[in-house]
Amino acid sequence: MAEQATAQIGVTGLAVMGRNLARNLARNGFTVALHNRSPERTRSLVAEHGDEGTFVPAESMADFVAALERPRAVIVMVKAGGPTDAVIDELIPLLDAGDIVVDCGNAHFADTRRREEALRGHGLHFVGTGVSGGEEGALRGPSIMPGGSAESYRKLGPIFEKIAAQVDGVPCCRHIGPDGAGHFVKMVHNGIEYADMQLIAEAYDLLRAGLGAEPAELAEIFREWNAGELESFLIEITADVLGHRDAATGRAFVDIVLDRAEQKGTGRWTVQSALDLGIPITGIAEATFARSLSGHADQRAAARRAFPDAGEKKWQVTDRDAFVEDVRRALLASKIVAYAQGFDQIRAGSREYDWDIDLGGTATIWRGGCIIRARFLDRIRQAYDEQPDLPTLLVAPWFADTVNDGVPSWRRVVAEAARAGVPAPAFASSLAYFDALRAERLPAALIQGLRDNFGAHTYHRVDRDGTFHTRWAGDRSELEA
Amino acid sequence: MAEQATAQIGVTGLAVMGRNLARNLARNGFTVALHNRSPERTRSLVAEHGDEGTFVPAESMADFVAALERPRAVIVMVKAGGPTDAVIDELIPLLDAGDIVVDCGNAHFADTRRREEALRGHGLHFVGTGVSGGEEGALRGPSIMPGGSAESYRKLGPIFEKIAAQVDGVPCCRHIGPDGAGHFVKMVHNGIEYADMQLIAEAYDLLRAGLGAEPAELAEIFREWNAGELESFLIEITADVLGHRDAATGRAFVDIVLDRAEQKGTGRWTVQSALDLGIPITGIAEATFARSLSGHADQRAAARRAFPDAGEKKWQVTDRDAFVEDVRRALLASKIVAYAQGFDQIRAGSREYDWDIDLGGTATIWRGGCIIRARFLDRIRQAYDEQPDLPTLLVAPWFADTVNDGVPSWRRVVAEAARAGVPAPAFASSLAYFDALRAERLPAALIQGLRDNFGAHTYHRVDRDGTFHTRWAGDRSELEA
Repeated sequence: MAEQATAQIGVTGLAVMGRNLARNLARNGFTVALHNRSPERTRSLVAEHGDEGTFVPAESMADFVAALERPRAVIVMVKAGGPTDAVIDELIPLLDAGDIVVDCGNAHFADTRRREEALRGHGLHFVGTGVSGGEEGALRGPSIMPGGSAESYRKLGPIFEKIAAQVDGVPCCRHIGPDGAGHFVKMVHNGIEYADMQLIAEAYDLLRAGLGAEPAELAEIFREWNAGELESFLIEITADVLGHRDAATGRAFVDIVLDRAEQKGTGRWTVQSALDLGIPITGIAEATFARSLSGHADQRAAARRAFPDAGEKKWQVTDRDAFVEDVRRALLASKIVAYAQGFDQIRAGSREYDWDIDLGGTATIWRGGCIIRARFLDRIRQAYDEQPDLPTLLVAPWFADTVNDGVPSWRRVVAEAARAGVPAPAFASSLAYFDALRAERLPAALIQGLRDNFGAHTYHRVDRDGTFHTRWAGDRSELEA
Repeated sequence: MAEQATAQIGVTGLAVMGRNLARNLARNGFTVALHNRSPERTRSLVAEHGDEGTFVPAESMADFVAALERPRAVIVMVKAGGPTDAVIDELIPLLDAGDIVVDCGNAHFADTRRREEALRGHGLHFVGTGVSGGEEGALRGPSIMPGGSAESYRKLGPIFEKIAAQVDGVPCCRHIGPDGAGHFVKMVHNGIEYADMQLIAEAYDLLRAGLGAEPAELAEIFREWNAGELESFLIEITADVLGHRDAATGRAFVDIVLDRAEQKGTGRWTVQSALDLGIPITGIAEATFARSLSGHADQRAAARRAFPDAGEKKWQVTDRDAFVEDVRRALLASKIVAYAQGFDQIRAGSREYDWDIDLGGTATIWRGGCIIRARFLDRIRQAYDEQPDLPTLLVAPWFADTVNDGVPSWRRVVAEAARAGVPAPAFASSLAYFDALRAERLPAALIQGLRDNFGAHTYHRVDRDGTFHTRWAGDRSELEA
């Protein structure tokens, strides 16, 4: 067991994510203390991968802590919720002022804020850190989003930046901001990932309905798209999944998968937070609800029976290439809306919680390592670097040009989907958001009139300041409130 | 001051809602104890309306409680949040086991659950009660949704049922279910109200764009609609608001109102709860987000500048009557979706929290008194009375027939709105929900494939039970998990 403090960092919780993070750290030259509740995992990690670097295995939490150089940095990689709190409670009495506890799990940012405050009371740093990229990313270079104090980042930064994915020589890691900022940004990342996947799924569904094509042909289209503006990890693996054939049946793999999408909760958290912040993230919301809907098997069966042929016309695509290009442009425009909404939410969260998050910097560290990694993110970085107070990503030059170029295609695709009865909730919702944002006047004025009529909720006028109420039940004169 | 207990019920908090509820109770023959933190309000109520019935004014909380017959029933009508807790804390030591505290404010159902549990610990009943209908409803007959224990309803029921709105001789009040059930149902009512108003606003906007008509002409259309299937309080006051002319400018009133819709939070709560329950209430979500969007003035100004003419074609309606009928049918179909989603949420909440809510009964008490009161709700009552385990309102006979009849119109309106650049997020989202629910296959299968590819999240198959994973990075064989 450890007799002197030699490790620069420690990992407790050695299931696959913790194990791979520990290996990544060791491979990059850091001495890594290891601990797991049941010591078998610690032993097997050393036995199987001990040659990848310097590990200091410990069987007790006390030995684990004793193995760490000060200020100590402990990565906690256990289940979110109760298990995380239990490990933190065990660590607190073993640590000294200035030590750092890093939670790399998928915690809700509100929990991270609570824990950060509690540990600050003990003189400890608590660093809620978003890690994206799955198991492979953890091992080979993830995107890392640490929150917590600037002081803690002086120790952690050089370590995390070294093990993160690198794009153009820039690490996919940066200090996001105080307390819960890292987990908040990771949450919005996941929300955007929901929207991205739903948009891809709708594009696939539209192409299939419009072209009457088989998945293998559609794989080819996504492969071509991946050579252009849509280039991204998700488009790449879409081609991969669509091209795969199920060995057992010989059918296209996507056709033997049950069409019920599951979720682990971060999409839901993103939408709930956006509602609190007053940010309309309709793309992420539709994507989250589309997953819920797919799971309501009884309702779907009943609706299929009640509406076997609900008035849709047969979809007839005459010009194949033009149609594919329409869908591509509609996908790109809808994706721009989803990202614009997600970055709005990050800005709103940053203001609400005083995090001072750099939006361009956030885009920078999503260029590699994470699930939504894409060429596209360089455009977002550039947009916010050039104009940090950009009111919405939609109006930055490249994005505005792209949307303006794509909007006729976008309108055709959404209109034809509605006519043909192919559900495209995220495409349609994104277009409606775009049209509402650029509308000269919104019917919100009527809503305010109704609210004043039934509830005396008052309204503002377009022609002068003040708050007004009309005596609807009386002589219809106007009062200034 | 009260020397003996003569009052059947008491009201503390005599701002306009409490004052009107107290008058309603007195007018219906109940002896009402009155209390307000500052006694001026109590005195002015008695001075102005003392002849409407029997009031027992009290200046201290102790005298107020002493004036009440046992088991005592105290209505608390103060601001939600801290003020409600403060009044409850003041009441607890003055009350005896079996007494009833009624919160008629707009509390979140989770707060109501917490308070109910706390008061149960003191041997007291706590009855979170939704009251809809605004100030006028409180005075003349609201829709009342009491939660809490069945025992408390034995005392409260006869009182509340007498002061509630009456439709066909049936009171718009019934016991909803234990603890937070009443406030939950009131919350969903408000969410549906958001969707209803957004759909009306979109219909107005589409009619105006398509017909190039003035608000006064559109008022006439809504007045006609109010004679048919859409008959409802909200359609009635829409005609009223659209027909109103601003005295100061001579312009249509709706055109001088600032197009920024406000909200007080119950729409947001409804969507947040639906996300927790896994119920896709896309109509209410789009309505809530549409209000947020309307308030982002800087973004709207920037988008107007960047997209002055974003590819929309000029809208040319050739057959006026056919177009109006298309919009009417699209509105009705979208409204059916919004109510179907809202009732799904009530059922899911009822299951989650063990409330055993009667869906038909809930529709019954919304037929009068409340903001969404409508002929339409009788159809919902009937649908759930005939088939309590209805998988979705959409498939009940009258609703399925109406949607099937309306679907060609619905598709035309959503398609034309997309083409013309008129934002119709709730119309479009409702149609997409309908098409997703009745789809033979959803692209959720592709989403599951992607999740398995990047995160080993596994999938189910259509042809056999079990949980599977494909070795995407390896030989692409399939494992059973």
